[in-house]
Amino acid sequence: MGEFMTETQQRPAGALPSTETLERHRPIATDIDGGPGPLEGPEAVVILERVRASVDPELRAALESLPPSMRRVALYHFGWEHPDGTPAAGNAGKAIRPALVLTAAAAFGGPAARAAAVRAAVAVELVHNFTLLHDDVMDRDTLRRHRPTAWTVFGDADAILAGDALQALALRLLAEDPHPASTAAAARLAACVIELCTGQHADTAMEKRGPGDIGLDEVLGMAEAKTGALLGCACAIGALYAGAPEEDVTALDAFGREAGLAFQLIDDVIGIWGDPGHTGKPAGADLAARKKSLPVVAALTSGGPAAAELAALYEMPYDKEDLQATALAVERAGGRDWAQAQAADRMARAMQELARAVPEPEQAGGLLALAEYVTRRSN
Amino acid sequence: MGEFMTETQQRPAGALPSTETLERHRPIATDIDGGPGPLEGPEAVVILERVRASVDPELRAALESLPPSMRRVALYHFGWEHPDGTPAAGNAGKAIRPALVLTAAAAFGGPAARAAAVRAAVAVELVHNFTLLHDDVMDRDTLRRHRPTAWTVFGDADAILAGDALQALALRLLAEDPHPASTAAAARLAACVIELCTGQHADTAMEKRGPGDIGLDEVLGMAEAKTGALLGCACAIGALYAGAPEEDVTALDAFGREAGLAFQLIDDVIGIWGDPGHTGKPAGADLAARKKSLPVVAALTSGGPAAAELAALYEMPYDKEDLQATALAVERAGGRDWAQAQAADRMARAMQELARAVPEPEQAGGLLALAEYVTRRSN
Repeated sequence: MGEFMTETQQRPAGALPSTETLERHRPIATDIDGGPGPLEGPEAVVILERVRASVDPELRAALESLPPSMRRVALYHFGWEHPDGTPAAGNAGKAIRPALVLTAAAAFGGPAARAAAVRAAVAVELVHNFTLLHDDVMDRDTLRRHRPTAWTVFGDADAILAGDALQALALRLLAEDPHPASTAAAARLAACVIELCTGQHADTAMEKRGPGDIGLDEVLGMAEAKTGALLGCACAIGALYAGAPEEDVTALDAFGREAGLAFQLIDDVIGIWGDPGHTGKPAGADLAARKKSLPVVAALTSGGPAAAELAALYEMPYDKEDLQATALAVERAGGRDWAQAQAADRMARAMQELARAVPEPEQAGGLLALAEYVTRRSN
Repeated sequence: MGEFMTETQQRPAGALPSTETLERHRPIATDIDGGPGPLEGPEAVVILERVRASVDPELRAALESLPPSMRRVALYHFGWEHPDGTPAAGNAGKAIRPALVLTAAAAFGGPAARAAAVRAAVAVELVHNFTLLHDDVMDRDTLRRHRPTAWTVFGDADAILAGDALQALALRLLAEDPHPASTAAAARLAACVIELCTGQHADTAMEKRGPGDIGLDEVLGMAEAKTGALLGCACAIGALYAGAPEEDVTALDAFGREAGLAFQLIDDVIGIWGDPGHTGKPAGADLAARKKSLPVVAALTSGGPAAAELAALYEMPYDKEDLQATALAVERAGGRDWAQAQAADRMARAMQELARAVPEPEQAGGLLALAEYVTRRSN
């Protein structure tokens, strides 16, 4: 959710500082995702392509099963139809979450577990997209994956209803899945939805408060609920579908959560200092919107003159002339360094959790590649 | 949903014409709902009181398990808290749907089945309330159970999120319920949510269209999806929890659907000709709002001069002077007679489905009493 919505944007490489842990886990095998055939090209890109190939037919069939009024909005949202119902090329995002489900299943149970988890991967992707539909309504966002958001095309009511229907469809798929792990997966996914809601609530509530009223723990908690929770849940469900023991499921959840937080930290850094040519939004867009992103809150809560200067700037309406000064104040107050160090720390924790649950590098390689991909370390 | 939201309003007795079928099924036993102790007072009222006593502790515990930000909105919506979080007397509606779950379970499996179905009854009630929260946002309704709607108190975003969380909580309860029927119930409930969404979509879409563009089948289909589907689902889930065979589950679903349609027809009649002292809203409120309710659409599609007169009146903005003439036009075009005959027909069909699945009157008595109650025939 949040910044993670902009998943189709390009990120500059190398934003995350290197850690020794990352190097230790470099994949050594070529077949690291349990998918069919050998890998060619960058691992994560190949994994994601294979995931789309596995997931899209099931996802499409699930959406086609919806009654016409819900199907229309859903197929538009997923990029498979134009507003008038004619077919579109499709741009349903990168499928990071289904990739985590399938790659986690493969890490514990090989290709058979991966194949058995496709329906669960579809369920996770449906939940993600239900939250996107609703978040766009609440945030009045007008663009999603380079197209007008569903509520701008169909109105608030239909966007809300389509989101409701996608949540129901996700949990229906799991309830109808005869796999022995499907019930535990449904309980986990439903619990995750509640956490996603608290994250979105915290985000919208914080945007209404003054910049001096927000603590760093609070904004980290929000990011974990809004972005980390579903990545963790996706990994945990993959592990469940492979019959992994409870402690490994828990470790995989933590892996996904930490990687998700690392992603969010890097994404927030890019939202201030990123290259507009790569990110698709002007550098400083988050500052212009007075967004209380992670580096900004870290800077604001750091004490000292730069923090005070930033707070004063944030209290004033946006002025283009102040953009440079604002970014500089965040940097001088330590916001950038903190965010990058935190991101590295989170990735290190993610790697530890992964190594605990999946000690063999050839089995862990796919998940590692995906974690690096979402934080744009490689790619 | 829709008019069924106003479930705490009083309806005049005797709105539904008597049918022979109803008489045939008058309960002959005193313990018709599988609840503890003998019945005293009107059957349905006693059943509903017992259901509240069984369901409220579990419902409350489920809501208390929500994170604070979601819990706050939910407890307010259910009437257990004031907006500031202080305790309130509580007015969570009449619990018709949980009553149908528990009474259907008792009809097939007696007190043990009724006791085992409490969690499922809570899940159904959570789904109903999730739709109320969202419908109020979409319809901009400002009152619910005599209190300001959640979105007017907490804003659109929190009302949408609390609704999302209640849907997730409902399906989480079922996923965590070890009862052998819980997975089938979850699949059924999730499918029902999708149908509810189509009903609400049809309702909002129809309100935007001209009165001449709406067919009778269309508005009946909308009412079935919006009101009948969840009543049918509640009955079916109760039967599932009692281990009833598939054909009886199907019959119970049909029973709830038909009773729900009968309710909607009677409710629409009252929305035009009802006694304001009983209904809590002025007579003709639906006409003033230019609502395309069932009797109105029946009148509009009847052909003849009264239909044309009504169409002309509906095209014009509301004028208090025209109210009497509008109601008279609906009546002269046959809208009232049609609605009452349809309601009787639907109740007869409901009774047939019930008799098919539960031939023994002493077992069917509770469900019969509830069906009569929602259509306000007795009480």
